[in-house]
Amino acid sequence: MRVGPSQDEIRRQNLGALLRYVHLHGATTRAELTNALGLNRSTIGALTADLAAAGLVTEGAPKETGRAGRPSLVVRPESERIFAYAYSIEVDRLRAARVGLGGAVLDRRELDRPRGLSAAEAAPLLAGAVKEMRQALPADAVCVGAGIAICGMVRRDDGLVRLGPTTGWVDEPIGAAVSAELGVEVPVIVGNVADVAAFAEHARGTAAGCDNVIYLYGDVGVGAGIIAGGRRLTGHGGYSGEVGHMVVSRDGARCECGNRGCWETEIGEHGLLRAAGRSDARGRDALLAVFDAADRGDARAQTAVRQAGDWLGFGVANLVNIFNPEMVIFGGTMRDLYLAAAAQVRSRLNSNGLPACLEHVRLRTPMLGADAPLIGAAELAFERLLADPLDVG
Amino acid sequence: MRVGPSQDEIRRQNLGALLRYVHLHGATTRAELTNALGLNRSTIGALTADLAAAGLVTEGAPKETGRAGRPSLVVRPESERIFAYAYSIEVDRLRAARVGLGGAVLDRRELDRPRGLSAAEAAPLLAGAVKEMRQALPADAVCVGAGIAICGMVRRDDGLVRLGPTTGWVDEPIGAAVSAELGVEVPVIVGNVADVAAFAEHARGTAAGCDNVIYLYGDVGVGAGIIAGGRRLTGHGGYSGEVGHMVVSRDGARCECGNRGCWETEIGEHGLLRAAGRSDARGRDALLAVFDAADRGDARAQTAVRQAGDWLGFGVANLVNIFNPEMVIFGGTMRDLYLAAAAQVRSRLNSNGLPACLEHVRLRTPMLGADAPLIGAAELAFERLLADPLDVG
Repeated sequence: MRVGPSQDEIRRQNLGALLRYVHLHGATTRAELTNALGLNRSTIGALTADLAAAGLVTEGAPKETGRAGRPSLVVRPESERIFAYAYSIEVDRLRAARVGLGGAVLDRRELDRPRGLSAAEAAPLLAGAVKEMRQALPADAVCVGAGIAICGMVRRDDGLVRLGPTTGWVDEPIGAAVSAELGVEVPVIVGNVADVAAFAEHARGTAAGCDNVIYLYGDVGVGAGIIAGGRRLTGHGGYSGEVGHMVVSRDGARCECGNRGCWETEIGEHGLLRAAGRSDARGRDALLAVFDAADRGDARAQTAVRQAGDWLGFGVANLVNIFNPEMVIFGGTMRDLYLAAAAQVRSRLNSNGLPACLEHVRLRTPMLGADAPLIGAAELAFERLLADPLDVG
Repeated sequence: MRVGPSQDEIRRQNLGALLRYVHLHGATTRAELTNALGLNRSTIGALTADLAAAGLVTEGAPKETGRAGRPSLVVRPESERIFAYAYSIEVDRLRAARVGLGGAVLDRRELDRPRGLSAAEAAPLLAGAVKEMRQALPADAVCVGAGIAICGMVRRDDGLVRLGPTTGWVDEPIGAAVSAELGVEVPVIVGNVADVAAFAEHARGTAAGCDNVIYLYGDVGVGAGIIAGGRRLTGHGGYSGEVGHMVVSRDGARCECGNRGCWETEIGEHGLLRAAGRSDARGRDALLAVFDAADRGDARAQTAVRQAGDWLGFGVANLVNIFNPEMVIFGGTMRDLYLAAAAQVRSRLNSNGLPACLEHVRLRTPMLGADAPLIGAAELAFERLLADPLDVG
C-alpha cells in the first residue's frame, strides 16, 4: 500500500530526477531543468549544489549564446569520472566496456567466444578485459557498479543465469563469478540481453519517449525485451519475453528447448541456414552470407530469406495483437533479417495484425546498434545511483 | 520526469490509500490501518476524520473482543451510501448493477441480448435497468461514477468501442450513449470485459496480491486481461490482450477477424461446437451441452473437448513463455473448458512451457465468478474516487 513519501524521500527523488535528466539528456541549463522537472529555481540550485559536492555533476557557463542578459548555468554529468563497467556475453563474443555517466562508451575490449565456453572460463576473460581498462583510468574515477547482458534466462531476484540455451549454461552465478575475479565491492547486475537492449533503446535510443515497445533480439535464438506502460516487463521470476519459444507451427522443426515448431526454429540462425541449404554453417557471418547471396540473386537463398521474413512478420503480428505496442525494434540478427525481407515482414504483419493494433505501430532498427547491450548493461548499473545519488556517489 | 509531490498531493495520496484499503479489505481497525499504511496514529485519525466528514467512511466501536484495554476504533466504507453503476454487455445478455463502495453488489438487473442488438438499441435497455434500480435508492445515496465491461476492443483514451467482433459494433461511443439516456453527470468508463474482470480478480479476487497474472476470458471469442508488474497492461491504444487472435495454425479455420487459424477458432464457441458436430448451435448453453455430453460418454463430444483442451494448453504455454505469470485464470467459457479438460490443458502446458516459466505458475478459476465483469466495471468507476477522495465524494 503506497502512502506519501517523507521529506527526505522527496529530496532523494528530486536528486535522482535531476541526475537522471542530465544522464539522459547531457548538458542542461538550470532554466531547462526548472521547466523539465517542475521545480522552482532555488530548489534546482540546491539540488545541483548537492550533486556537484558529491562529484556527480559540474556546473559552468554555457557556450556563448549571443543573447543579452545573464546566461543560465549549465549542469553536466561527470561523464569521465563516474562510470560503470558493462559486459555483454554473446554467442560468439565477449565484450567489456567502461561507460560514463551520460551513456558514452569510454573504453572497450572485445574477445572471441568459442561456442561451448563455460561460465567459469568466461569470468576470468571478462575480468582480464577490465584489468586492462583499469590501466587507463583517471586517478579520481569512481566505479558505481557493473552490469552484464547475457543471452539466457536470468532470475530477477539474484541474477542467476537459469538457462542459456545457446551457451549451454545452467544455473550459473555469473555476476558473483565476475565480481570474485575482479575483487571489487560494487554490485554486478545481470540481465537478459533483449531486456537490457530494450532498456537502452527506451532510455536513450529509438524508443525514447515510447511507453509500449517490443525489442526483438536475435542471435542463435530469439528473445524480446518488452516495455509496457513505460516500464520494463520482467514477469514473476524475470523470465518474460521468451517469444522465440512461442510455438507457431505444431509440426515444425525440433527446437533446442526440446519442443517443436518454436518461432525461433523458423527465424533463428539454424532455421535460416537450414532453409538456405547451409545446415553445416554457424554464426552471424554465415547468416550475412545468406542475405548477401539472396541480394546477388541466389534463388535458394532468396526463398529462405523471404520465408523467414514471412515468419518474422507472422510472430510480430501475434505480439502486436497481444501487446498493442507503438514500436517494434529489430535487433541483433533480427535487424539483418528485417532489412533483408522488410516487404515480407510488413505484408504478413498487415494481413495478420488486427487493424486497431496496427494503427500506430512503427517498425524500427536500433539507434544504438550493436552497443545497445553494453549501454543497457551500464544503465542497469546506473539505476542504483539514480535511485539514491548521494548514497552511492 | 517524476519529481517529489507537494504536501497537498501527499495528503490526497494518503486519503486515497486509506479509502482504498477499507474499500478492498472492509472494516479495519485504526491499529491495522496504522500498520498497513505505515503512517502514525494521529495521521490515521486525521485522515479518517476527513473521510468521515465527506461521508465516505464511518467510524465506530468494534465488536466485543473480550480483550482488556481500550479497543481500537473500526473504520468502515460507506457501502450502502456510496456506490457506482456497473454494466456488462455480453454476447447473450445485458447486465446492470449497483455496486457499493467495498465491492458488494447492492442491486442488479439482467436482460437477454439478442445477437445483433446494436449499441443504439442496447443503451436504452441499460438505462431502463438503472431507472428501475433508482426506485429503491436510499435518499442519501451518492453515485460516484459508472463503468461498462464489454466484449470488444476499447480505445483507452475515450472508451470508444472500436470493434466488437461478436457484437458487430464498430466505433460505438456506448459510454456517451448510456450517459445521455440516463441524463446523469457522472463519467462512464468503458473497458474490455477481460481487462475489467482481470482488474476485479486482482483487486479482490483470486489474484489479490499477485503481480503477474493472465486472465483468459471466453465467450464467442477469447481475450485476456493482463496484470504485469502489479499494473494493468493496456497497450498503446488500449487494445492489448487480443490473445484470441494469436495465430496458432497457419492452415486453421477462418476466424471472424478475417484471418485463419486464430487461437479462438480452436477454443472459442464456434470451433468447439463445430468439432462436436453441432455447427448450427450457438451460445453458452450449447457449449455446456457439449461438456455434458462428453461427461456422459459421447465419443464425438469427448474428442472435441479434449482437442480444445489441448489447444487451450497450447496457447496458455505460449503466453506463459511470453509473460512468465504467476497465475493464469480461466474465466467465462474458458472456465468451463478448463474444468472439462484440465488434464489436457496441463499436459500441453507442461510440454510446451519453458521449465523456468512453469515453476511458479498456478492455474485458477475466478473467485468472483460471473460477477467479475460487473465488479470490475464498478472498480473502474471507483478509481477516480480513490485517486482523490475529497474531490469526488
